[in-house]
Amino acid sequence: MSTAQRRGRRPGSPDTRAAILSAAREHFAAAGFGGTTIRAIAADAGVDAALVHHYFGSKDDLFVAALALPVDPRELLTTATLGPAEQAAEPLLRTFLSVWDDPGLQPGLLATVRRVLEPGGDKLIREGFLPVVIIPMGERLGVDRPDLRMPLVASQVIGLILARYVLRIEPIASLGTDELVGIYGPVVQRYLTGDLPVQ
Amino acid sequence: MSTAQRRGRRPGSPDTRAAILSAAREHFAAAGFGGTTIRAIAADAGVDAALVHHYFGSKDDLFVAALALPVDPRELLTTATLGPAEQAAEPLLRTFLSVWDDPGLQPGLLATVRRVLEPGGDKLIREGFLPVVIIPMGERLGVDRPDLRMPLVASQVIGLILARYVLRIEPIASLGTDELVGIYGPVVQRYLTGDLPVQ
Repeated sequence: MSTAQRRGRRPGSPDTRAAILSAAREHFAAAGFGGTTIRAIAADAGVDAALVHHYFGSKDDLFVAALALPVDPRELLTTATLGPAEQAAEPLLRTFLSVWDDPGLQPGLLATVRRVLEPGGDKLIREGFLPVVIIPMGERLGVDRPDLRMPLVASQVIGLILARYVLRIEPIASLGTDELVGIYGPVVQRYLTGDLPVQ
Repeated sequence: MSTAQRRGRRPGSPDTRAAILSAAREHFAAAGFGGTTIRAIAADAGVDAALVHHYFGSKDDLFVAALALPVDPRELLTTATLGPAEQAAEPLLRTFLSVWDDPGLQPGLLATVRRVLEPGGDKLIREGFLPVVIIPMGERLGVDRPDLRMPLVASQVIGLILARYVLRIEPIASLGTDELVGIYGPVVQRYLTGDLPVQ
């Protein structure tokens, strides 16, 4: 086999996609979402920038793909944000819990959380996950000040993830969906649409 | 120098204390708080169990010492839990924030958080920090069901720690103490003394 044959990647081959995703992960982790360009990722992966767009769509889409989540949170949460913002906490929490409690999805989600908690992972959240996934959810809901309210929602949801799935603190680890929605629903709803003492 | 001299540790020497703490960390991480005995730690450190008690006090005290926190949370939070439970959220949050926002203490606290988030660290929280530090705080406050309420408080405080200090999500990372107390105070107070829809 010639060197050219061995090194050659067919467009659309799993190798090319993997090379792009691998380069994307390195760039997003090192430079954050804002400091990363499709052009630089393409160069590192040895492909044309147009091919990256062809495979993965926008930079937002590539970022979500690079997170290697078992589900695209933007699709899932779309149905949860169809109703009025004043009642959004319950469907948001139910959607969130149904995904996290799924034994087929939980290992992949836990792996993502562990990656985010490693040094450098903070940038992925601050410059990627928040502006690409979390803040737009608040915009779609039409809440005022999504840039303030959605991080507050995140601060309780992150704590719930850590307590229930990572640290497995009882009774939080064993409570049913209805009980968790009853406990955390009013808190998340206040962060979404309640009065907050912030200028 | 003879072998005996090189290996010898004087009681109270920094070496002996460090050996005990090192053995304690290994045991607590591997077997959890409940599965660890002072006797086993002493044996690993090559000292008598009585010496461990002499240096570190109770098993609770040794556990807190092994966490290597820059402050003993039990002492700090004692003053915050002197008033009525119905008004405890604000002093608890103010004490918590004053410690975490102290630039001299924050690096040590962050190091502890990172250690806890590594594999095995969940046991330290579940079997150590919760029953030794967090649940007793609720008992001292006289809340009903501290075994349920204090983990809920922890789930919001953990999320606040992650958002403000680890992931440094804005605006949470930059908000002042009064604003944070205004945002999180009612949530923590509800978890401490509010109506909760749990059997």
